[in-house]
Amino acid sequence: MDVDGVPTRTIRADPELGLVEVIDQTLLPHAYRWARLRDVDAAAEAIARMQVRGAPLIGATGAYGMALAAHTDPDDAALDRAAATLVATRPTAANLAWAVRRVAARLAGLASAQRAEAAWAEAAAIAEEDVATNRAIGRHGLALLRGLRPPAGRPLSVMTHCNAGWLATVDRGTALAPVYAAAEDGLPVRVWVSETRPRNQGLLTAWELSRAGIAHTVVADNAAGHLIRSGQVDAVLVGADRVAANGDVANKVGTYLKALACHDNGVPCYVAVPGPTLDFGCASGLDIPIEQRPADELAVVRGVDDAGAPARLRQLPDGAQVCNPAFDVTPARLVTALITERGTCPAGVEGLRRLYPEQATPG
Amino acid sequence: MDVDGVPTRTIRADPELGLVEVIDQTLLPHAYRWARLRDVDAAAEAIARMQVRGAPLIGATGAYGMALAAHTDPDDAALDRAAATLVATRPTAANLAWAVRRVAARLAGLASAQRAEAAWAEAAAIAEEDVATNRAIGRHGLALLRGLRPPAGRPLSVMTHCNAGWLATVDRGTALAPVYAAAEDGLPVRVWVSETRPRNQGLLTAWELSRAGIAHTVVADNAAGHLIRSGQVDAVLVGADRVAANGDVANKVGTYLKALACHDNGVPCYVAVPGPTLDFGCASGLDIPIEQRPADELAVVRGVDDAGAPARLRQLPDGAQVCNPAFDVTPARLVTALITERGTCPAGVEGLRRLYPEQATPG
Repeated sequence: MDVDGVPTRTIRADPELGLVEVIDQTLLPHAYRWARLRDVDAAAEAIARMQVRGAPLIGATGAYGMALAAHTDPDDAALDRAAATLVATRPTAANLAWAVRRVAARLAGLASAQRAEAAWAEAAAIAEEDVATNRAIGRHGLALLRGLRPPAGRPLSVMTHCNAGWLATVDRGTALAPVYAAAEDGLPVRVWVSETRPRNQGLLTAWELSRAGIAHTVVADNAAGHLIRSGQVDAVLVGADRVAANGDVANKVGTYLKALACHDNGVPCYVAVPGPTLDFGCASGLDIPIEQRPADELAVVRGVDDAGAPARLRQLPDGAQVCNPAFDVTPARLVTALITERGTCPAGVEGLRRLYPEQATPG
Repeated sequence: MDVDGVPTRTIRADPELGLVEVIDQTLLPHAYRWARLRDVDAAAEAIARMQVRGAPLIGATGAYGMALAAHTDPDDAALDRAAATLVATRPTAANLAWAVRRVAARLAGLASAQRAEAAWAEAAAIAEEDVATNRAIGRHGLALLRGLRPPAGRPLSVMTHCNAGWLATVDRGTALAPVYAAAEDGLPVRVWVSETRPRNQGLLTAWELSRAGIAHTVVADNAAGHLIRSGQVDAVLVGADRVAANGDVANKVGTYLKALACHDNGVPCYVAVPGPTLDFGCASGLDIPIEQRPADELAVVRGVDDAGAPARLRQLPDGAQVCNPAFDVTPARLVTALITERGTCPAGVEGLRRLYPEQATPG
């Protein structure tokens, strides 16, 4: 997409210079700056520090990290180390290991001298496919949104959690793709934006929607139940970090609570899932590793001071005991439908096997 | 209670000076300071600005606000104005109107010259009763906690939301009263403390528990579902701002989501409710008014800077659209039991009528 003539791509590469650039999302929404990644360690650090985040963008960054590795040292041992380094950064998103392994597999049969070029090309293909995938998710999701019937007098109101917009992907977003498609199609839509503590990725969503001119309202994560129960939400629409074979969904922590509120009130809960987020190797959500993040994510808050300069403050004392799981698992029974690039299906093994027969077949 | 020889009372009065003092909770946990209230408008402002918060403490402050009013001007018209001013500050907590009306009723039959003394005495009685009530809730709640069976190898783990400790009351707390009783009785207990955005009252709970030497872990509100689903929580234990005749519970926004997670996982959800929080005039939770609070509660965050000085920063841009309901309603069907000063009962009209026959009888 582009907004006011500015492209919304989150990652770009210059194979000749051996350079990858990403938007540094740790500074957003308060500052918009690009970070330069010149080797695989920088790519791994960008993922670990969450300069890039969102399962699809983590995948693309992993792929470009392999290209940086092949650019520097295309030997088997170096590439193996690079892949291990990248995959170890964050355990939950399925896209990361998928993308790294895909590039590695592409290079395996090639001579060293051919590997860098092939790696850049494969990473670019993964990035392009992500955009096309998200465009298709937008189309299928929009069809679902068109089937919702908000009460007379107010626009269609969807609630999202975390950020699954263009910032979380190479472009267009997953959960927000149907929202952008609705806006492009002239369907009035309003978005409830959940703050998404502790890292406040809801503020990224608000920033995206502001730039795109889409009506939205920021709420505390705690407010989701009240809003859903009081009939102010027509659907919850979220992304995913990994979806198990049975349709259980790992996504940003707090998703499960929203899905419970939907279920208790007959409100649909839709999960946007690109193919690379599916993991048929996990039989159920119980098999999905849940990342624990540092205590500082709760203890330290970022924003701007009265003069508008970036600022941080501490809200928990040093040494406060903190538990900070980054994801939770929403059981398939609470998910109304999965929205994939191949169409929508119930969250369950049959629907997923039908849409992704080649992934579902072992071996 | 007292901690290290310091009493934990939240409100104190000097009738001769016409002075009420409260802990300024807008500064906690970063600074501990008392605020002086010299007239009813100061009392109303302390409630509205949440220098005092927690339904029982709001009630006591309302009662002392009436005493300040009677101290200044004991005429009927002035007292009526004072009562209206106090009751208008915050709409959800039942205790406020209850306490203000109780003092007003005490004064109605008296000559003007007797009113100030009677008002101070009635406010003091309300405060003393609150402490005794909370002590009884602690005893009844402890009996419930003793019935829980944590897996071998870890202490009893309860999750709370917001702050329903001594800071939310005159002393001892409601939801935390059983925890303090457990600690006094030598029953090992650990508390999951939910941050409670947007005002972060969980940090008040952490501060209380730190001072009392009770093990606790702070978590994002979003983490509640994951922790409950993964078997790390033996019970959720919260307070209430108003309980309807049918047992529906209005409490800090986010309570409903925790109750849903409890219900989905067979974990008990207990609500500590002193008598003055019951409102038999509300047939169900649908009749309970839900306060909307200012956008700045989400937009501005407070803490300390690197030097430890109180600091604030802005995390949402000016003009960001925000919706900020302060409470939600948990339907009675999700509440395992109410813990009152008269014993525990199922959340429903029969149990409440049995325990509070004099309140339940109309007229």
